[in-house]
Amino acid sequence: MSGARITAIETYDIRFPTSLQLDGSDAMNPDPDYSAAYLVLRTDDPDGHAGHGFAFTIGRGNDVQTAAIAALTPYLIGRPADADLGELWRELVHDSQLRWLGPEKGVMHMAIGAVINAFWDLAAKRAGLPLWQLLARMSPEEIVHLVDFRYLSDAITEAEALAILRERSDGRRERAAKLITAGYPAYTTSPGWLGYSDDKLRRLCKEAVQQGFRQIKLKVGADLDDDRRRLRIAREACGPDIRIAVDANQRWDVPVAIEWIRALAPWDPWWVEEPTSPDDILGHAAIARAIAPIKVATGEHVPNRIVFKQLLQARGLDYLQLDAARVAGVNENIAILLLAAKFGVPVCPHAGGVGLCELVQHLSMFDYVAVSGSMEDRIIEYVDHLHEHFVDPVTVRDGRYVTPTAPGFSSAMRAGTLTTFAHHSSDG
Amino acid sequence: MSGARITAIETYDIRFPTSLQLDGSDAMNPDPDYSAAYLVLRTDDPDGHAGHGFAFTIGRGNDVQTAAIAALTPYLIGRPADADLGELWRELVHDSQLRWLGPEKGVMHMAIGAVINAFWDLAAKRAGLPLWQLLARMSPEEIVHLVDFRYLSDAITEAEALAILRERSDGRRERAAKLITAGYPAYTTSPGWLGYSDDKLRRLCKEAVQQGFRQIKLKVGADLDDDRRRLRIAREACGPDIRIAVDANQRWDVPVAIEWIRALAPWDPWWVEEPTSPDDILGHAAIARAIAPIKVATGEHVPNRIVFKQLLQARGLDYLQLDAARVAGVNENIAILLLAAKFGVPVCPHAGGVGLCELVQHLSMFDYVAVSGSMEDRIIEYVDHLHEHFVDPVTVRDGRYVTPTAPGFSSAMRAGTLTTFAHHSSDG
Repeated sequence: MSGARITAIETYDIRFPTSLQLDGSDAMNPDPDYSAAYLVLRTDDPDGHAGHGFAFTIGRGNDVQTAAIAALTPYLIGRPADADLGELWRELVHDSQLRWLGPEKGVMHMAIGAVINAFWDLAAKRAGLPLWQLLARMSPEEIVHLVDFRYLSDAITEAEALAILRERSDGRRERAAKLITAGYPAYTTSPGWLGYSDDKLRRLCKEAVQQGFRQIKLKVGADLDDDRRRLRIAREACGPDIRIAVDANQRWDVPVAIEWIRALAPWDPWWVEEPTSPDDILGHAAIARAIAPIKVATGEHVPNRIVFKQLLQARGLDYLQLDAARVAGVNENIAILLLAAKFGVPVCPHAGGVGLCELVQHLSMFDYVAVSGSMEDRIIEYVDHLHEHFVDPVTVRDGRYVTPTAPGFSSAMRAGTLTTFAHHSSDG
Repeated sequence: MSGARITAIETYDIRFPTSLQLDGSDAMNPDPDYSAAYLVLRTDDPDGHAGHGFAFTIGRGNDVQTAAIAALTPYLIGRPADADLGELWRELVHDSQLRWLGPEKGVMHMAIGAVINAFWDLAAKRAGLPLWQLLARMSPEEIVHLVDFRYLSDAITEAEALAILRERSDGRRERAAKLITAGYPAYTTSPGWLGYSDDKLRRLCKEAVQQGFRQIKLKVGADLDDDRRRLRIAREACGPDIRIAVDANQRWDVPVAIEWIRALAPWDPWWVEEPTSPDDILGHAAIARAIAPIKVATGEHVPNRIVFKQLLQARGLDYLQLDAARVAGVNENIAILLLAAKFGVPVCPHAGGVGLCELVQHLSMFDYVAVSGSMEDRIIEYVDHLHEHFVDPVTVRDGRYVTPTAPGFSSAMRAGTLTTFAHHSSDG
């Protein structure tokens, strides 16, 4: 196998017409068409393994995101199939010319994330392991090599990261075994889309509890009276012991967020998610101070580890919602997991969209085995759509993710999907 | 003229081989190829005016930036040539699907900025006025209509912005007249590129002082001993009364920045620019506290008004360096000027690159006439390259920008440049 090289990058502009059903509708995203700017890394290895990765978007602009991935082709062709992914990350993210397009944010950063994730999918397949296990078997030194500590050293140094990982080295095997038998806690967002009727909301809440979920999530932020009514319905349907998170999808300015959340307090919301702009670190901190003991959760639109660092420093979040396809892939998410561990903040990944559940389960499971060492107060989002397009879709049973065992990052879409849902510019 | 519509969007991937001379070399950008993702808005008006705009990049990836501009075409064709630019801004920036690609940052946000700036160029040409004057003749109500206060209201409300503009209404005419006779202060970065020899540095410093500049800027951050020597040479060549700014181009982590700048303090640097990641608001604030009375300046990579808001709230900068082509165009820069006025922080725009001097002069001059009402402690960057490619290039005389009087935003490149420097993907 050694000596195998990357020979081709295939890219696909994949779009699903989700706006037709209002699945995924929220206060900021009334009609998303869940999409993926998707790539496949091909090698000349006779093993035939390919690396799959993607950026998630919600429709228009997916062509630009796909073009950004394709623009990285000259950086990738001829690389070893078992490239040093710490080095590759640094090379792509710190490329002095590409960097200008962010830096470390937006379309180009997400494109790098898709490529890095595809390399990890390839690496895990070549190792014959699910990604979480490949990562969890690495030494603390190998893990730290994957992380770029630039701009982080005032919050966490490489030595501190090593100390955290070494402290967790004991018990890795037991935790991995527990994952296989017990899975990882999930919560469901499926009941709470803004476009659903009250009856549908009530029915889906009851079903969620029957299915074993201990937390659900409701979209809020369009109309306060509606939110009060919907939260009351959900609380009645779920009973007092189920955590109900609310998600404003960045709808509010800081003062409005505080007022609105206080108005929802009687129905005991557990966390409020994305109360304002994801760029507003100080705003999140002001909101968190004002609404305690209700918690703040954010992360799906946080562009990079540097903004997460500050959200932790400023106490702008109580739950860190990393996203598998927003930052520059697995490596940057390891940096984020280490930051969260340093600050003692639980990571509860953002998922849903296209394939995000498939990806983040590996990150949370690696976190459990090797970084935080805990599933306490941690939970992965689950949304029950579009999984049928994946070769190794997630399974959620009794309110828990079933731990994946197939080799890879669970990122590969089915061949038929890549054909059927390919978007052509003439589609408009 | 009324009833004219946008009929076509032409896009151009323009690249200049600046890496051959090391002009523009700094600690993070050793070999930039200054580039523009450029567009021309055509209308069916017999007046023949066209709107020109661009995003600035430094080479690789300029194709992706150009593709992002082209992707906006369906949003633009058929719009009135005199579109309501407040409404257009909101529509493009808050498009629920495109927004996912940022939000409000990176390639897609810069693409929207290029388009918005092209509409302003067109509007100014149709009005027969230089852009600064078109803006400065608007009423406070018209100006405020251009600004989106979303996510700003905890720092500045629409009412506060109106009050600032109304307070400055008196004296607008006198300030506009003074601009025409006296121009606007400039500083020069041309002596201080990292790739230049000590002799060239010394000679260029002396020339700058002889040319009437009262401030120069040196790139730093690659090697402390070199920086000490180069700053000493510059200080000797310029004498004690010239302000010498230093620019680290994001090279340092927070603790290193503080240590490094303190080591340069004996040669009296005026401000340190981009000491660390542009995303690190709290880091900038920590640096500013530690190095006072040396000032902190930043902005050229700040993605939007929300991050500027926090840099002001946290006192992370003493000089705000807006960039004409990083945020979403003129409208967002008006929001930023208003924020700076509210916090009493001088705006000293970033320029250089391709055409940035041409654009920012209009913003600073509008700021002087209608927003801050002052040129005190304010200065525009000047770099003496690539102006020959513009139809209305800037003129700097006796260390001051000569106020532009030609209609438009000074954003149009010469037709020959669009042909000669067009990049084709086969160029590699």
